[in-house]
Amino acid sequence: MLNCGAVPPRSLIGIDLGATKIYAVLLEGNDVIAEAKGKTPVQGGPLAVVDAVRKVVDGLGAPKRANLVGIGVPGNVDADASTVRFAPNLSGWVGPFDLGAALSDALDGRAVMVDNDVNVGTLAEHRRGVAQGVPDVLGVFVGTGVGGGLILGNELRRGPSGLAAEIGHVIVRPDGRVCRCGGRGHLEVYAGRASMERRARTLESRGRDTMLVDLAPARRMTSSVFAKALAAGDVLAVELLDDAVTTLGIAIASAVTLLDVPMVVLGGGLADRLGPAFVGRVEQAGRSRVYRDNPVRVVPTALGDRGGAIGAALLAADLAGRS
Amino acid sequence: MLNCGAVPPRSLIGIDLGATKIYAVLLEGNDVIAEAKGKTPVQGGPLAVVDAVRKVVDGLGAPKRANLVGIGVPGNVDADASTVRFAPNLSGWVGPFDLGAALSDALDGRAVMVDNDVNVGTLAEHRRGVAQGVPDVLGVFVGTGVGGGLILGNELRRGPSGLAAEIGHVIVRPDGRVCRCGGRGHLEVYAGRASMERRARTLESRGRDTMLVDLAPARRMTSSVFAKALAAGDVLAVELLDDAVTTLGIAIASAVTLLDVPMVVLGGGLADRLGPAFVGRVEQAGRSRVYRDNPVRVVPTALGDRGGAIGAALLAADLAGRS
Repeated sequence: MLNCGAVPPRSLIGIDLGATKIYAVLLEGNDVIAEAKGKTPVQGGPLAVVDAVRKVVDGLGAPKRANLVGIGVPGNVDADASTVRFAPNLSGWVGPFDLGAALSDALDGRAVMVDNDVNVGTLAEHRRGVAQGVPDVLGVFVGTGVGGGLILGNELRRGPSGLAAEIGHVIVRPDGRVCRCGGRGHLEVYAGRASMERRARTLESRGRDTMLVDLAPARRMTSSVFAKALAAGDVLAVELLDDAVTTLGIAIASAVTLLDVPMVVLGGGLADRLGPAFVGRVEQAGRSRVYRDNPVRVVPTALGDRGGAIGAALLAADLAGRS
Repeated sequence: MLNCGAVPPRSLIGIDLGATKIYAVLLEGNDVIAEAKGKTPVQGGPLAVVDAVRKVVDGLGAPKRANLVGIGVPGNVDADASTVRFAPNLSGWVGPFDLGAALSDALDGRAVMVDNDVNVGTLAEHRRGVAQGVPDVLGVFVGTGVGGGLILGNELRRGPSGLAAEIGHVIVRPDGRVCRCGGRGHLEVYAGRASMERRARTLESRGRDTMLVDLAPARRMTSSVFAKALAAGDVLAVELLDDAVTTLGIAIASAVTLLDVPMVVLGGGLADRLGPAFVGRVEQAGRSRVYRDNPVRVVPTALGDRGGAIGAALLAADLAGRS
């Protein structure tokens, strides 16, 4: 029997624009029916990025009716204006750029919605992942840096400056080391992969013995490098991770005290790679410090590194008033 | 000419239930047209408090048409149920108490809305005070302890546990002194009056010279005592206040980073007594630590110690769907 009256599920395009790679999905209902990848260009600024994104989207083979696009960007975004205010992790992005308009032009006039990458990652976990049915959720993403996204009353809280939920810049050690943003003692100094890498290289150059540098002599000290050194019982790697767990616990305890959220979703490259054991330790570190023994849950993501692109697609659905 | 058709302004009763005193107002439009005071009983538990509140309200001489009552309570409140979950600063309150129902019975069946005292204080500054027209505001109240109230998108954010905005229990010194709640290094340890008093007495007993103890040998070390000692250049008082300013700055910087609020209203007994100079120092301490030089404003309250009762009255208006 032909089901002639059935409405096909809406096709949505979601893009995760990262500092090093671009990942896109074609989402229909709950299903990712196509995905595509590419490298983020390090030269040519925003226009080169727009061109690279277009090529990745072409690789999806999306039907014409997939006319709504969402994109998550590692930077500060004015979501209402679809504009990236600044994006320090993308080479050559100086000043604000109207990414929504430029990408819409490149993608045959499709409507484009832009948001911060961790905002869409948090949205994805809330709508399709581990935090479904939880109205108030804090997403904490531990990768190169530490980012945060916040859902309050089932809505993304972006804040008037688009900086809400920036847990990476919460002060965990007032007299501590300086963050790449210039602030002192921020969470990101202790729990961000790039900062942990800098610390490991500095201490090794001062005579500390560690396989972290042996495993990554000249290339990036990836999350996998940290995982290998930890598994081998490397003392410096253990120290750095203990510090990351403790400071994540401090920041999460303070954030839960201020926001009164019952769940924290802990994701990002480092957390995904280190897995549930790491997430469990952070939960313990947070609970041991939270006000009035709030039984906050800290849980791994369900969607892993696809969350950003899926969340961006869901954002595109919001654009059309349909989720 | 008789203005027979004019609707009289709604009369609202607002009550600020404090640990030591009860203060009530009769509010018509923007005007406080009557006020009354009484002492908070320290014996007899919730029922004695209800009786004392009834007497204070009787003192307002409110007309029968003032049939809506709001009350702010120093404790954890389930606003939807008009129930106080716990109130450690009120003698003899053990376990939850349905204050809304009990007070309604005592006040001739008037409808009663209950909320946390700093929530209503923040609401008052948002609706009638210094934060009018600012959709996102954090209220920080520095008195015996340190409390917080949060307005996001023009709405009070209470949180599922009623604990949102508890900035007094944000961690500002992870290895610091123990808070009366049992946590370590909380803001309240350094900026709450009661904790500063304990610290002053401890250090004096160990040989530090300070007029703080001379001015309050056996009685409470009030905000006025701190103000006098500061004015006289008492070294310990200066140290304690410097520490309060620094830690308020740390907590406010982290809170602004998480919440992305452009304004913090700083009130409470200690802040009101020490005045704009103190508030200005806290603003400087917060701005010097906030992420990306967010130009957050930290401002004194406009309503002072009447704010709680006025906010409670405004809450009562919300009960009737009219503000």
